[in-house]
Amino acid sequence: MTSRDGFQWTPETGLAQGVPSIGVILPPTNILSSSALYDVIVIGGGYSGLTATRDLTVAGLRVLLIEARDRIGGRSWSSNIDDYPFEMGGTWVHWGQPHVWREISRYNMRTELEESFDFSHGVNHFQLRTTQGASTMSHEEEVRLDTLLASGLEKFVNVDGDMGRKVIPFAHDAFHVPEARLYDEMSAQDRINIIALSLTPNERASLESFILLCSCGTLATTSFFELLHWWALCGYSYRGCMDALISYKFKGGQSTFAIKFFKEALATGRLSYAFNSPISSISDQGDKVTLTTRGGRQYSGARLVSTIPLNVLNSVSFDPPLGTQRAAATNIGHVNQCVKVHAEISSKDMRSWTGISYPFNKLMYAIGDGTTPAGNTHIVCFGGFNNHIHPEEDINQTKQAVESMAPGNMDIKRLVFHNWSKDEFAKGAWFFSPPQLLSTSLDAMRARQGNIVFANSDWAVGWRSFIDGAIEEGTRAAMTVKEELQPAPALRSSL
Amino acid sequence: MTSRDGFQWTPETGLAQGVPSIGVILPPTNILSSSALYDVIVIGGGYSGLTATRDLTVAGLRVLLIEARDRIGGRSWSSNIDDYPFEMGGTWVHWGQPHVWREISRYNMRTELEESFDFSHGVNHFQLRTTQGASTMSHEEEVRLDTLLASGLEKFVNVDGDMGRKVIPFAHDAFHVPEARLYDEMSAQDRINIIALSLTPNERASLESFILLCSCGTLATTSFFELLHWWALCGYSYRGCMDALISYKFKGGQSTFAIKFFKEALATGRLSYAFNSPISSISDQGDKVTLTTRGGRQYSGARLVSTIPLNVLNSVSFDPPLGTQRAAATNIGHVNQCVKVHAEISSKDMRSWTGISYPFNKLMYAIGDGTTPAGNTHIVCFGGFNNHIHPEEDINQTKQAVESMAPGNMDIKRLVFHNWSKDEFAKGAWFFSPPQLLSTSLDAMRARQGNIVFANSDWAVGWRSFIDGAIEEGTRAAMTVKEELQPAPALRSSL
Repeated sequence: MTSRDGFQWTPETGLAQGVPSIGVILPPTNILSSSALYDVIVIGGGYSGLTATRDLTVAGLRVLLIEARDRIGGRSWSSNIDDYPFEMGGTWVHWGQPHVWREISRYNMRTELEESFDFSHGVNHFQLRTTQGASTMSHEEEVRLDTLLASGLEKFVNVDGDMGRKVIPFAHDAFHVPEARLYDEMSAQDRINIIALSLTPNERASLESFILLCSCGTLATTSFFELLHWWALCGYSYRGCMDALISYKFKGGQSTFAIKFFKEALATGRLSYAFNSPISSISDQGDKVTLTTRGGRQYSGARLVSTIPLNVLNSVSFDPPLGTQRAAATNIGHVNQCVKVHAEISSKDMRSWTGISYPFNKLMYAIGDGTTPAGNTHIVCFGGFNNHIHPEEDINQTKQAVESMAPGNMDIKRLVFHNWSKDEFAKGAWFFSPPQLLSTSLDAMRARQGNIVFANSDWAVGWRSFIDGAIEEGTRAAMTVKEELQPAPALRSSL
Repeated sequence: MTSRDGFQWTPETGLAQGVPSIGVILPPTNILSSSALYDVIVIGGGYSGLTATRDLTVAGLRVLLIEARDRIGGRSWSSNIDDYPFEMGGTWVHWGQPHVWREISRYNMRTELEESFDFSHGVNHFQLRTTQGASTMSHEEEVRLDTLLASGLEKFVNVDGDMGRKVIPFAHDAFHVPEARLYDEMSAQDRINIIALSLTPNERASLESFILLCSCGTLATTSFFELLHWWALCGYSYRGCMDALISYKFKGGQSTFAIKFFKEALATGRLSYAFNSPISSISDQGDKVTLTTRGGRQYSGARLVSTIPLNVLNSVSFDPPLGTQRAAATNIGHVNQCVKVHAEISSKDMRSWTGISYPFNKLMYAIGDGTTPAGNTHIVCFGGFNNHIHPEEDINQTKQAVESMAPGNMDIKRLVFHNWSKDEFAKGAWFFSPPQLLSTSLDAMRARQGNIVFANSDWAVGWRSFIDGAIEEGTRAAMTVKEELQPAPALRSSL
């Protein structure tokens, strides 16, 4: 099955829109005849919506899942090309991420993970380029660069003499210490300015590229607090960051995981669904909520779970309108405009390679991520808003940006990508906060409004921005709705 | 409500059995009249059984929960004495423990945790005594002792030059690298013998007491592999161990958490239960499973989830009998004979104190754990099988062992404890494996047998022995049973 989403380029076929995915659902619509008024309507088939849908249907409620796309997964989905999964969005998971790991364990997929990194090939497995000229490092230097990245990050986060532990002692309650809010007034740039004298040029380049890999905004639009929060989530160490952020992925791709939620919900016999159904408006009439699709269809439910992402929320009309603070937050939006480009290249040695090309290049950070069935190396490259491109608009510029990550070693056989910035149902990649958004609006983003519960990783409290946060939020929404629609029965005792 | 479990001693009352707990369930029996043949019988109201019961009742199945005790929680429960919770068994949780954290998040208890440690009082917050003579350390030494504990542990686990990461790269799939099995042939004593020359006497004493705090067996009966597994779970660092093992607990006590599962199951209207109902036999007749209580009552279900702990499993008669390997494992048993004694003492400064008294004392490791409403300091002390006592048998000996942890600073106002070794429904504390048990029998312990599914933290694959592992197992059991009893209905489409 082929999704409309995503792009692929090969020398033979050129650029083509749409890539195959097991996350595409056929038939695209399945409306159970008995469902005039649903218990719950869930908008969005990403992990938040899938989790809410599954939990609610399993708990006995009749649910309608509405999705604008032709597939599940939202900002996390994989394309299977020649039996090899390319991750179009969210990719990596870790057992220290509680919500996603609980699901991986529950679906018995614990042994279906593999490491992205494989340092058993090649020689130069870490390359830092700060100008167009090559600066390949020797093995000894490369070990030092890992230390360099760690030491740059430690200087960056060490605001309290205890590596941020005093400021954020509870990673899942990040504003527990009120002082933490002060760091949300600051941007990453502000913090770098403070520690600038203590950073060597290479330390600073690698630190900045790592920060931009996290936020995919600019240094000035990246909340320093949110970076501290990520650091706390990762156990306050560079090694912890690498482990949790970019190491472990599904052998079969994200969509092999997402489909489990969907199938479990379907198996209850209580799931109706409609894909290809973008929403135009949502009206909460007090006794029920009615949504209208762009195509003019209407559906009603006693409750509605909206998993519409922050950056898209203001494209849907709400009646009554969104609360002031939520409306302000969605108009500000998050700053992540990640450009993620997969390249299949011929060099086998590049499997062990990691590279930073910053700040001059249109892509800045890349790692060897796998070996394809054809025996080619799969490289995944990241860029962001600081040097933004739309990769499908000028494919030669995109190829050049990939090649410039490791000049002479990038014999490109295939490119695969999803332009999240131009995706009207995402308008960006994973959530990353600008300064002040979280300290002013997190509570407002999390608040319910009448019969509508808002659930999205964008406003999770733990692994916000991650798949884990999406599942956290879907779980929360389902729990909220379930408790309201299933009041506790009186105890009947036969004794 | 007062449980039969546990003991309390004060100078005024002397020793008394039974302590109050909100985990005691009244009425103790609630059998729904419609339930002649249950869908599922769950044996055991610890976290495994509570999780399975909740998941199955929420999913629409009619469940009977049978429990030998008068309370929920199994080996994790809290006693509220004068509005202060003493943790009688399993206590600490962490957000890196996925199953327990998912539940804490789901029940919105994320902000109901607090830290056991509080270094804002007193002066000597780390005391190492290796002989009866006092050896209080200065603040400078104490920082070094923390380093000492870390360095001892690092020498202990560093079998691969990468702190155990190569041997156990996947903490939740610990036998992923076949070589890991070799370390299950070794005891902690074997490993210490290998590195003995590299350890200073104080390093060795603190390392040994830490190991015995983990296993509460003897060094010779403690699997080295299982310690490596704990180390991997804790993120391969001493700091990670302290964070995950002994830092964060519920402000209101474990039973405030356990009761959430029970109440959610009860609210479905599909839960029958019977406390005070020890089992004598279980018979799987193919079309159903029938259990018989010691009191002669019989109950039948289509499936049965047994959460009976490993050390107790051979006290119940199974027909057909337990498989050979499982029977062998239960006859071997695990080695944890933890002695956990809470002491309320008058010194406020002791709130900041941590002490090791090893190997001469009947208790070996203690920390300041809280301040009681009376303004006293709450100290929790640990002992194990290496120097075993039954604390209620000779209360003066027990008091002496507490006093000897910090001579002159232990003005005891109250003692609270649960003797897990003499508890016929536990026969020990949290699971800790002797050498060879896991590599030979983990799969057998996890296997189902006909209509009986076995679920217990004792054979979890992730945080085995922890509350997290219990929830992991309860989740697995519920998923297994649910999938069998609720076959997927055919898709009905009105399109």
